[in-house]
Amino acid sequence: MSRWKPDARGRLEKAALELYNRQGFDATTVAEIATRAGVTERTFYRHFADKREVLFPADNPLPDILAGATAAAPLPLPPLEVITRALTEAAPVLEERADLAPQRQAVIAANPELQERELAKLSALASTLAQALRDRGLETTTAALAAEIGIAAFKVAYERWVNDPDRHPLAQRIRETQDTTSHLIASPEHLAATDSVNPTDQEGAA
Amino acid sequence: MSRWKPDARGRLEKAALELYNRQGFDATTVAEIATRAGVTERTFYRHFADKREVLFPADNPLPDILAGATAAAPLPLPPLEVITRALTEAAPVLEERADLAPQRQAVIAANPELQERELAKLSALASTLAQALRDRGLETTTAALAAEIGIAAFKVAYERWVNDPDRHPLAQRIRETQDTTSHLIASPEHLAATDSVNPTDQEGAA
Repeated sequence: MSRWKPDARGRLEKAALELYNRQGFDATTVAEIATRAGVTERTFYRHFADKREVLFPADNPLPDILAGATAAAPLPLPPLEVITRALTEAAPVLEERADLAPQRQAVIAANPELQERELAKLSALASTLAQALRDRGLETTTAALAAEIGIAAFKVAYERWVNDPDRHPLAQRIRETQDTTSHLIASPEHLAATDSVNPTDQEGAA
Repeated sequence: MSRWKPDARGRLEKAALELYNRQGFDATTVAEIATRAGVTERTFYRHFADKREVLFPADNPLPDILAGATAAAPLPLPPLEVITRALTEAAPVLEERADLAPQRQAVIAANPELQERELAKLSALASTLAQALRDRGLETTTAALAAEIGIAAFKVAYERWVNDPDRHPLAQRIRETQDTTSHLIASPEHLAATDSVNPTDQEGAA
């Protein structure tokens, strides 16, 4: 049991996600996870501070990747394109764990406290991006807005990717979502045109 | 102490926010809040289930307002314009509590657990909006994307409003943020143009 086996961390992660899904996050103990992974509790704590860290790794490389990619992006790009490229650069890190991603999502979806933690992590990524955009000279509100919108779109792209049985590349989903975002915002001309052709529009001019 | 006084709820809210800010949310007791408001603990519990409900009222009317306004919006409007109008319709409810809003934001900003709860509430509003957009016939991913982006922009607009000493109307901030969002999303032509005029763009064609 205490003999070294390859990839203890990977097996602990897999065992934890299986147990969290089967019996619930709250009901699962570290002892059960360790037993299922064939290691000691001590080995668990060598890799994770607690049960929750299996879902939210302390050494998450995403903030650094996003900040670095945002800083390195060509200057004239529009802010949302900068963010799309930064997220695309971070995609391979998430794809490394593609096989565990659906289970992880299911565990989080089943537990409001974990959902709140996931939202906090996404919000922290938005703050990282906003800071990186300000460092590029973007005004504070514009930077915050671009970062929040970029992460909002990423959230939708990520969920599509996780729930896609065909597993299209995450980068493709991010690009598609960004393209859809452009279409959500009509130009003022378009807006005026559609307003005026709607005979049931109660806000139309008399 | 137990005699009826007008607006016990309002005084409890004010007392709670003052104490949360001065000594921290966790360190404040219901007894202290009641004493400060000049009512009994029993009166506190007649209005709020617990300390946290002062910050996150159970009878929040926003979801119903947003869902109703989204359902009633003229059909040809682009999704983000529908959301902007719905949020604008909800603005007066938030402006009713304008005097307490900065204190509430400060309390939440100081406490990670309350921040996570606030994010969860915003995320629930996004789900409400996404459902209302699907009911209008919008495809699932597009509805989710519009809702997430709409709430992301609202978050920025709300923060600007709270931190604005001149207190411009919230509806104005929502409209401004929506306009900025349109500018953040450049058309593909614009993107191509800025890419090609950048001599330092390392991704440029050879």
